[in-house]
Amino acid sequence: MTIKLYPDERLDDLQRSGYHIIQNPKKFCFGMDAVLLSGFAKAKPGDNVLDIGTGTGVIPILMAAKTKAGHFTGLEIQHESADMAMRSIRYNHLEERISIVEGDIKEAGTLFASASFHVVTSNPPYMIEHHGLVNPDNAKMIARHEVYCTLEDIIVQTAKLLKNSGKFYLVHRPFRLAEIFYLLVKYGLEPKRMQMVHPYIDKEPNMVLIEAMKGAKSRITCEPPLIVYEKPGVYTKQIYDIYGYNDARVKEHSER
Amino acid sequence: MTIKLYPDERLDDLQRSGYHIIQNPKKFCFGMDAVLLSGFAKAKPGDNVLDIGTGTGVIPILMAAKTKAGHFTGLEIQHESADMAMRSIRYNHLEERISIVEGDIKEAGTLFASASFHVVTSNPPYMIEHHGLVNPDNAKMIARHEVYCTLEDIIVQTAKLLKNSGKFYLVHRPFRLAEIFYLLVKYGLEPKRMQMVHPYIDKEPNMVLIEAMKGAKSRITCEPPLIVYEKPGVYTKQIYDIYGYNDARVKEHSER
Repeated sequence: MTIKLYPDERLDDLQRSGYHIIQNPKKFCFGMDAVLLSGFAKAKPGDNVLDIGTGTGVIPILMAAKTKAGHFTGLEIQHESADMAMRSIRYNHLEERISIVEGDIKEAGTLFASASFHVVTSNPPYMIEHHGLVNPDNAKMIARHEVYCTLEDIIVQTAKLLKNSGKFYLVHRPFRLAEIFYLLVKYGLEPKRMQMVHPYIDKEPNMVLIEAMKGAKSRITCEPPLIVYEKPGVYTKQIYDIYGYNDARVKEHSER
Repeated sequence: MTIKLYPDERLDDLQRSGYHIIQNPKKFCFGMDAVLLSGFAKAKPGDNVLDIGTGTGVIPILMAAKTKAGHFTGLEIQHESADMAMRSIRYNHLEERISIVEGDIKEAGTLFASASFHVVTSNPPYMIEHHGLVNPDNAKMIARHEVYCTLEDIIVQTAKLLKNSGKFYLVHRPFRLAEIFYLLVKYGLEPKRMQMVHPYIDKEPNMVLIEAMKGAKSRITCEPPLIVYEKPGVYTKQIYDIYGYNDARVKEHSER
């Protein structure tokens, strides 16, 4: 099928079920964090899944390939990203499984019914906004800094949108772990599973994957660490298993 | 010097500054967790340090060897353990640096002045009390189960007893990490540093070491994991460095 690509856009092969994704490397490309989250997250057959801040839709597209979830909704505030996501979905013939909604998570109450999702995923901006540092016209900045919404906004809305016992899957930076757990517990999303991602086994983690369950009892399983590199330039078997493809593609997709 | 040992008690060499400790293997012996906490915790010259639930006093004794802190107080609710700790302190000639207080952390307000400690340490009971399972006359049970105080009691009192910017060092089980972070943040003790302890690199962690600071900003450093075993029966260099002595002693001291 033919597809409209705007200047600077490219069509990348996701190496999963033949799916592709439109990205603009001058704006923002998905990173290893999105791929690891789509490997860490689980969805049951028929589940209704929401991805908050979906960007170009990489998480719903990868999870459509990996799970039998019934329907995915990707919520995105930036028009240009939402438009890329919609074109990718058409290109992949995924219109019946994935919808893209352009909107603001803080207004989720007007966009979606309460307790309507079995699963919520999010790869949100990691950095707390610093006035002056952030250019709100810059897609990369918006993806990285809490310009349009805070972590608390996402957690508050997720707590409303999830069904009871529904799961929330989040990837974030470890330096915010205490704040993340505090907010999750405060709003009734109990952290149930976490995995630290370390570039090397003897280095500090630079990502953390978290599963929380609405209304669950307090008890978390801390998984063995996920190590990215065996040695410089050589990924671990853990990483190849998650990507499901070869070295060159991991490298290309891990530039964020 | 001579020392009174009751039946079943033994005098163990801590291999630190010539210090020894009285323990009763039929009741409770300190474990690797206490040693790792005393390695993870920091105290500056002259600091006033409190150890909550000190048991036989192992943490103050090890920290007296490792730091130049001015004074340590070990608080212990069980008479028998407090008495063993006091005899160990006399045996080690540490009466001027370590005091043992027999009492209940929930009454800390009547025992100690507010904001009077630079550092608080604790290796508390890990297990939530289950009625029927716990025999309150059993020293091991009391050391392991929240019979006399909960984690929240310890955190509430620590928040009162620490000076502003004072540090709290805790060792606990990872399955309670979300609850620990929630309570620390709730009571103004901001988690600033954590380290997971894994028996093997590819296994789930079974201990977590946490540093929190009273009144600090939110940002935590997650350290590289601490791995206990190279392979069955062989400790890692990390462990030898913390113990500062040989394989046989680590093994003997890690039975809890």
